[in-house]
Amino acid sequence: MSQQIDQVRAVIWQEGELKLLDQRLLPLQQRYIACEDVMAVADGIRDMVVRGAPAIGVAAGYGVAIAVAACYKANPNGWRQALEADLTRLAEARPTAVNLCWAIKRMRAVITTLEGDPRQAVIDEACRIDAEDLAANHRMGELGAALIEQRCALMTHCNAGALATAGYGTALGVIRAAHAADKVSQVYADETRPWMQGSRLTAWELLQDGIPVTLLADGAAAHLMKQGEVKWLIVGADRIAANGDVANKIGTYHAAISARHHGVKVMVVAPTSTIDMSLETGEQIPLEVRSEEELLAFNGQQVAASGAKAWNPVFDVTPAGLVDAIVTERGVVLQPNMEKMAVLMAG
Amino acid sequence: MSQQIDQVRAVIWQEGELKLLDQRLLPLQQRYIACEDVMAVADGIRDMVVRGAPAIGVAAGYGVAIAVAACYKANPNGWRQALEADLTRLAEARPTAVNLCWAIKRMRAVITTLEGDPRQAVIDEACRIDAEDLAANHRMGELGAALIEQRCALMTHCNAGALATAGYGTALGVIRAAHAADKVSQVYADETRPWMQGSRLTAWELLQDGIPVTLLADGAAAHLMKQGEVKWLIVGADRIAANGDVANKIGTYHAAISARHHGVKVMVVAPTSTIDMSLETGEQIPLEVRSEEELLAFNGQQVAASGAKAWNPVFDVTPAGLVDAIVTERGVVLQPNMEKMAVLMAG
Repeated sequence: MSQQIDQVRAVIWQEGELKLLDQRLLPLQQRYIACEDVMAVADGIRDMVVRGAPAIGVAAGYGVAIAVAACYKANPNGWRQALEADLTRLAEARPTAVNLCWAIKRMRAVITTLEGDPRQAVIDEACRIDAEDLAANHRMGELGAALIEQRCALMTHCNAGALATAGYGTALGVIRAAHAADKVSQVYADETRPWMQGSRLTAWELLQDGIPVTLLADGAAAHLMKQGEVKWLIVGADRIAANGDVANKIGTYHAAISARHHGVKVMVVAPTSTIDMSLETGEQIPLEVRSEEELLAFNGQQVAASGAKAWNPVFDVTPAGLVDAIVTERGVVLQPNMEKMAVLMAG
Repeated sequence: MSQQIDQVRAVIWQEGELKLLDQRLLPLQQRYIACEDVMAVADGIRDMVVRGAPAIGVAAGYGVAIAVAACYKANPNGWRQALEADLTRLAEARPTAVNLCWAIKRMRAVITTLEGDPRQAVIDEACRIDAEDLAANHRMGELGAALIEQRCALMTHCNAGALATAGYGTALGVIRAAHAADKVSQVYADETRPWMQGSRLTAWELLQDGIPVTLLADGAAAHLMKQGEVKWLIVGADRIAANGDVANKIGTYHAAISARHHGVKVMVVAPTSTIDMSLETGEQIPLEVRSEEELLAFNGQQVAASGAKAWNPVFDVTPAGLVDAIVTERGVVLQPNMEKMAVLMAG
């Protein structure tokens, strides 16, 4: 277990305190923010102190535990009622990653069964979500790496790594496992505008593991694929609909279209907590649009012409038809569609 | 003509002096750099004080005139020999835009015919290149706008505007003409990493003309096209091969693939000085790769993890098969191929 403990952790629960690695400061600074109440957790999710669908889910689990403790302390008899407002505000922190609501729903399921002091039970459940996510990532790493038939270059978009999960990563978990199996000649990472998750987070993570990584502008993806070295585009997901449509960081859909054009296969790596069977297709997934300032300025420095407008959708939907494999901890779905996804989720 | 004179000019020849608008400082500062010798022109091209294939060609024409004047002044009898080294260094400033060598070749053709003091004749020829480029842009604006059948949104990548030419622009010339004809509901401009030509230059230019412009991350192009509002992707070119393959700013190829996927038409707007009939296909076009620092840092601020590598090709090639129209001052080539391009250039 020492290897896992040594790794970067975006979300730490230690001695009854939740700490979130402030990913806005990476790679220049590594600083954790302690969350003393559930609103601090909601703020941390909304402001992207913590990001990445599974990590948001893990943080939300602990956030609920913190809320329960506070509500119970304030009113040991009426705590459930006060809790509702907290859970609503937590759920509204970000719209696209379904893991947020999934974690709250799971915590709520435990809460409804509790009698007496609920505090230890909710902490235990939050810790289970955390541990299960880490285990799922290791399992997905094995399953995804097994799909890579020959040593080749891999491409990824955004950061679906240890920083986006309980640890090890989804897409980067597969890349880690493939690298360990000597299947990776090079990892290419889109810098991932506007938030630069590729440059700031993915490169940082992979360098710490000694995995060769080369950054490129998002627009260079097709030109890279044309060179023929890249055989797989491997990404995470923020929400997967019942038909296998995948919401993920803006640019994923663009890259997936170019991947198909060049015969590069597309692998989506996500735990089943990211699959939302209540939505028939990706068209129904709420896609967050963030402030245009993220495009118009950089670290507070004006970039664009004064008066320019910007459109800043931060997620897009890649239709299942462009996806070659969805890798989950329960197994792999090749050429996903509604029937295959239903079989996976029933299994 | 007052409208044209009022417009932004990237390259100004005034009272025997060449001034280049320092596009590295836009949109925050408008400052011209005076080029006292040909090496200053070469430096200005290499360091992207001036950029955009036609503007590079115009600047190079004046650069040759400056070189001729200096060489003639230093040695009225042996100036042609000294000039060769200058022209070689000027030609090497940037590799992809063929307009650089095209302008030097055109100036050289005049030089070989000269007797006596060559100075006024080379200035006259440089001014003709300048004036012809401006006229070509207005002609292409009309021809390109005529291809747009209905009022719609247009998308562009990089800056193929007044700033990239003698004035008015190639792609932005078409957009200006289409806007004047009330055919434009909105212009979407990729921010265009890493140099941000879209945010810094295109938005600035269009705002000055009161043309509505919305910036987006390069990766958001496919998601935008999926919305159905955009009917044309309109771009410039740095070099077009004899078969109609188009070298342009990195990301153009990526965008063109998504355009085809969504039924968005692709229009390439470039004067015939950008067409290189000596190269059979785009595979033979030299594509510049610039410093990885352009990706790893932003305005000198570190962005990426220390030790990360980056690949920074700044041009890519869009195959003719993905291009719906090449618009030149001599006419429009629909669904370009070798035969059609040969007819255009012979005409």
